[in-house]
Amino acid sequence: MLKNSQKSLLVQVQKNIEQNKLIMPGDFVYVALSGGADSVCLFDILDKLQTKLNFKLAACHFNHRMRGEESERDQKFVQEICQKRGVELKLGSFSGKNALKSELEARNARYAYFEKILTSKRGVKIALAHNANDLSETFLMRLIRGTGLKGMRSIPLQRKNFFRPLLPCTREQILCYLEEEKLPFMNDSSNKNTAYLRNKIRHNLLPRLLEQNPNFYQTMATNIRILSEDFDYIDSVAKKKYKKLVILSKNQVGFKREEWLKLHPALRFEVLRLALAELGVEQDISSLHLGSIYQMIEKGVGKKSLPLPHSLLCSLIRGKIILSKKP
Amino acid sequence: MLKNSQKSLLVQVQKNIEQNKLIMPGDFVYVALSGGADSVCLFDILDKLQTKLNFKLAACHFNHRMRGEESERDQKFVQEICQKRGVELKLGSFSGKNALKSELEARNARYAYFEKILTSKRGVKIALAHNANDLSETFLMRLIRGTGLKGMRSIPLQRKNFFRPLLPCTREQILCYLEEEKLPFMNDSSNKNTAYLRNKIRHNLLPRLLEQNPNFYQTMATNIRILSEDFDYIDSVAKKKYKKLVILSKNQVGFKREEWLKLHPALRFEVLRLALAELGVEQDISSLHLGSIYQMIEKGVGKKSLPLPHSLLCSLIRGKIILSKKP
Repeated sequence: MLKNSQKSLLVQVQKNIEQNKLIMPGDFVYVALSGGADSVCLFDILDKLQTKLNFKLAACHFNHRMRGEESERDQKFVQEICQKRGVELKLGSFSGKNALKSELEARNARYAYFEKILTSKRGVKIALAHNANDLSETFLMRLIRGTGLKGMRSIPLQRKNFFRPLLPCTREQILCYLEEEKLPFMNDSSNKNTAYLRNKIRHNLLPRLLEQNPNFYQTMATNIRILSEDFDYIDSVAKKKYKKLVILSKNQVGFKREEWLKLHPALRFEVLRLALAELGVEQDISSLHLGSIYQMIEKGVGKKSLPLPHSLLCSLIRGKIILSKKP
Repeated sequence: MLKNSQKSLLVQVQKNIEQNKLIMPGDFVYVALSGGADSVCLFDILDKLQTKLNFKLAACHFNHRMRGEESERDQKFVQEICQKRGVELKLGSFSGKNALKSELEARNARYAYFEKILTSKRGVKIALAHNANDLSETFLMRLIRGTGLKGMRSIPLQRKNFFRPLLPCTREQILCYLEEEKLPFMNDSSNKNTAYLRNKIRHNLLPRLLEQNPNFYQTMATNIRILSEDFDYIDSVAKKKYKKLVILSKNQVGFKREEWLKLHPALRFEVLRLALAELGVEQDISSLHLGSIYQMIEKGVGKKSLPLPHSLLCSLIRGKIILSKKP
């Protein structure tokens, strides 16, 4: 028999999967299983749901080889729990010459591995174990640094073939579930020194927000879900407009200033962002930078190289806006 | 000669007014002058700008008669500074039988007075002295309680004929300006016991956010400006859709469920909100309530009275959604 808190978490996750069509019958789902609390909980819940929701469960583990003995311990732990349950496990590990140094490098190597799994056969999806605490932390980090609607979505519920069934669930719920189910998990010593800002938010800011609203994490999950719908709508309209407007050539994107000015300001922003994405530089352009490009075009200022990554150039020639990057 | 900080605040406010067309040549602008720091600063800046921007400045003051002697002191102070500068002052005061009791009652009485001024002649506008601190506080209050894009706009830069030239400026900038200009102002003793949540945010939360980003207020002002554009776009599309969809009769609003379902989820939300506004109950419906109406319609559940203010009834009859309130 499942206890109440276990049952409610299981029900909540199932509801999240069904309402948002995160898993469809016949899907092949790999859980990204690090061995930490969140991923062990997700693994257990998906294992319990696989017959009911009619999908096939497997696990994958990427060994970053960044924490010596601890990395090997985690891999062994993951191998054991998969073997015990008879669940297929795909193992990958970092094999580059120079060890991974930063969280960003580790993330890139891990996602490259995930992408390989996704393309290995049809109908494959990867379940990631991010929770509502991660979601609120990311939101607050972006809010503090400055962001628009797109950034406020924080961690998407699904993106391409990645999805996050635990996103509406709090860390507290997860730990409670693991305790009641008597499921062991590994502690990642690197979690203790996560990035400076995230740590400050977790330890100094969130306790005070929770004082004012004990359901802050859930409230934020709802807030963000609504914002995501709004972004999705604006993005879908902007993509159509962009397609109509854009004139492409190598390393440059252009459109008529007059046509761009006819758009609603919200769409103008998104069209610019899509142009930057086309040039492959969107990740490096903050909303502050985007604002300065926006103002430059609005004012109709001529040729100007912006102090941006990739020496982005924004020119206005015979009424045409041209964004180009140095190759 | 103006010192640097004064000059920069003056320039910033002028830029805000011009870029956002808050004042047009020939406008008749009343500053809502309470006598507090913010409104005295705004009064002084608008006084300095009136010739340059070609508008006529006046002031208005509403005496709530809620703080005995202090209320009279503030009124006298406002009369003096207007007389000194030769600026017209409109005085109003609460004359009801029973004294105003809450902040909300005070606000309602004050805005009723403002509305009377707005309709007194053509081309009249009212300048309010809300600043970037107020803006961030309101944003965080709504974030904590739960809100969508509409609520996140917090305090609009302009709404009908009200506008807020100091909205991008911090309280610190304002106090610094007043000190350098040697402008006296009144302290409102009721400010010390503002609402519980706002106080907590001001004293416990904001200092920690400012530790992480010393320009947090300015960053938030930018974040919110972008969100406001996004809301404005979605709202404008939703209004067009609503007009096409809606079937009106006394105390009820209806539309075909099938047509509503064809809309993007972001628009479905806004169309529902517009229906509630039509019924005059929007203010009392939280985004949580809105979510439950949304789900009910989406699922296609039949007649159901929702546990909402005004005993709102949401029915589904022959494929038609009908929202009605008991008269």
